[in-house]
Amino acid sequence: MQTLNDERLSQLEYLGKGSSLVTQIHALLPYSPLIESFSFMEVALVSQFLEIYRVQVGQQVIQEDDVGAFMVFVIEGQIEVFKRGTDEKPVLIAVVGPGGTVGEMSLIDGGRRSATCIASAVTLLGVLSDESLAHLLLQDSHAGAKILVCLLGMLARRLRETSSAIIALSQNGYHEPTPLLYDFLMSEL
Amino acid sequence: MQTLNDERLSQLEYLGKGSSLVTQIHALLPYSPLIESFSFMEVALVSQFLEIYRVQVGQQVIQEDDVGAFMVFVIEGQIEVFKRGTDEKPVLIAVVGPGGTVGEMSLIDGGRRSATCIASAVTLLGVLSDESLAHLLLQDSHAGAKILVCLLGMLARRLRETSSAIIALSQNGYHEPTPLLYDFLMSEL
Repeated sequence: MQTLNDERLSQLEYLGKGSSLVTQIHALLPYSPLIESFSFMEVALVSQFLEIYRVQVGQQVIQEDDVGAFMVFVIEGQIEVFKRGTDEKPVLIAVVGPGGTVGEMSLIDGGRRSATCIASAVTLLGVLSDESLAHLLLQDSHAGAKILVCLLGMLARRLRETSSAIIALSQNGYHEPTPLLYDFLMSEL
Repeated sequence: MQTLNDERLSQLEYLGKGSSLVTQIHALLPYSPLIESFSFMEVALVSQFLEIYRVQVGQQVIQEDDVGAFMVFVIEGQIEVFKRGTDEKPVLIAVVGPGGTVGEMSLIDGGRRSATCIASAVTLLGVLSDESLAHLLLQDSHAGAKILVCLLGMLARRLRETSSAIIALSQNGYHEPTPLLYDFLMSEL
């Protein structure tokens, strides 16, 4: 049963929970900052909280300025990310392939989307909603916290990149989670 | 015993673990985005992982461009945050009072400090290091995950503010964690 109540997602082909794709998702570990530290069992657990959609070329997954509270994990295919430029024309700002994610910020704060995401190939997506993340955190805080640490690392990296763009502090660079938080990521209970 | 091995902190007066200040820290809940959703028991737990320092007026807690992997929670007093301007002169960019925090980004990624923090009153600080956070996550993933969700909300808010500054997308606004993640924050195990 499809549990996400999102107008745009409801127009996409729903394939069920991610439990059926654990092996394929686990194979993406080397390409995925979100789950790179996960054991097979943890991938299996988290997959239960993903909702899988198949998206056709040209279909829109996320629309700039919409509100939304989910992120999208690309399992297969490709997503192009566009942002409206000053002349209102869409500018391609990123291409996201298997293992990559879009929409983390709105997953956290439910705020408006900062860009539009359109499939540029037949694409399999795993959608993680704020509701699913909250359930995951209640059911298995340890695995949930690992997702959160990875999300924090991704947001901190983007914040440093954005700040650098403003103040040209490029010497600051950016980093993954600290070695000690990385140790936590590698832990299993 | 002082467990943090940081040159700048080692010059400050160390007062021990936060366990002795639980009531005072708990009283800061209404003023603190970091712990506003915490029960007294959760504050007591988290306090064990804080290291308390007393800082005199004019003493420096964090120096711009240093590397560091801890954040600072202001319990009493006041911290002024300065950033080097284009002419190398320090510019006051924020004043942080009781319940406020500085240094979250480096706590997560161990990267360089984006600003300098100096006490403008006799100040009591609780320091949370990446090592303590990792221990907290292992000892009590649920309370640890609540800290992480709050940190994510704070980083997402700052990212939206920073992005708005770049692209003048001020209509995007910013938000706290979504209502459903807020429900998780309010949960107790």
